[in-house]
Amino acid sequence: MGDQAKEGRALPADVNRETLSRLSPLSRDALSDEARAAFDALSRPRAGGKALAGLQGPGGIWVRMPKFGKLMGEANRYLRRDTGLSPALIEVAILATAREMNSQFEWTMHEPVARNEGVPAAVIDAIKHRTPVAGLPQTEASVIELAREAIGRRKVTSETYAGALALFGEAELLNLVALMASYAMTAMVLTVFDQQLHDGQTPLLP
Amino acid sequence: MGDQAKEGRALPADVNRETLSRLSPLSRDALSDEARAAFDALSRPRAGGKALAGLQGPGGIWVRMPKFGKLMGEANRYLRRDTGLSPALIEVAILATAREMNSQFEWTMHEPVARNEGVPAAVIDAIKHRTPVAGLPQTEASVIELAREAIGRRKVTSETYAGALALFGEAELLNLVALMASYAMTAMVLTVFDQQLHDGQTPLLP
Repeated sequence: MGDQAKEGRALPADVNRETLSRLSPLSRDALSDEARAAFDALSRPRAGGKALAGLQGPGGIWVRMPKFGKLMGEANRYLRRDTGLSPALIEVAILATAREMNSQFEWTMHEPVARNEGVPAAVIDAIKHRTPVAGLPQTEASVIELAREAIGRRKVTSETYAGALALFGEAELLNLVALMASYAMTAMVLTVFDQQLHDGQTPLLP
Repeated sequence: MGDQAKEGRALPADVNRETLSRLSPLSRDALSDEARAAFDALSRPRAGGKALAGLQGPGGIWVRMPKFGKLMGEANRYLRRDTGLSPALIEVAILATAREMNSQFEWTMHEPVARNEGVPAAVIDAIKHRTPVAGLPQTEASVIELAREAIGRRKVTSETYAGALALFGEAELLNLVALMASYAMTAMVLTVFDQQLHDGQTPLLP
């Protein structure tokens, strides 16, 4: 069935079958050396573990702006690997951001990663369904509230800020906010180019 | 009056008098060499033209994450100088983003820059007051609609995308979207830390 099912998948009329976004396909031969190296790395994403979504995702968008994309890649690696934030907390911050940005793509890519990193189902569900954080662990609750206010309401109350500061301290809070802002930026770009889920993925955000 | 007026200015209770944000002041002596160099460059912003707002703005936030801040600085310089976007169009994109993010800080810093770059008053007013873009030049109208949909509604219609694509082409549209997403990221960070306007600035966003 494979190929036939693929062809049969309904995509928005302005989404390209290859890029799964509004962007036109890249021709490897037409790329600069810099862009071609990034393109090749993204073409085998799972092997190198370099990008969750390969060419059909943020990497495939930024490869078209190779100098800028390289900076974004380095920034992402820094936020994920060099700040000391735990992988589970990173995924909570990403999910809370994806939810507030209404990014089906970012959410569906990261929900399985979050589960894999041990984020409790109750935390994932509260973010997904935007339910109150009462009863959740304090750390996760604080990150969720911060994302809801910073992204959803565009205003962070003194109480929410003070709570986060008490839990994380200034340096870690900065890292968390930079991480959320960076994924919000990515979500916005995915939205403009209407990046679709990969073949076979089930949308996980209601 | 100078200092007395300064001291007398009403700030939110959790905003620091020196940083004009929720962040605590930096001690130059306690910084790493890398951070200190950035700190010093930001301490004389107008002279070097390196950052519009100096230490009391995004630069003063990122200097606390020097490695990440350096990447953000390079990304910003790339978007502003190396994409071929005109300075006026860049400012339209920044204002449209600041408006949708409700960023008083970003707006008030950039409205004068936009006027200086020749952005027509009618364009600035339409963005500021969120009025319809009918009657505005096509290029500016397209950027404004894109920001309203991508940031405000978190969904960009096929019609809006097609219009922007026809005007800008894929490469320039990518540059524009990256620019808007980058300023949206900055606006979010400014919001979390409640960065205030500088002394003597009048808020320009209603």
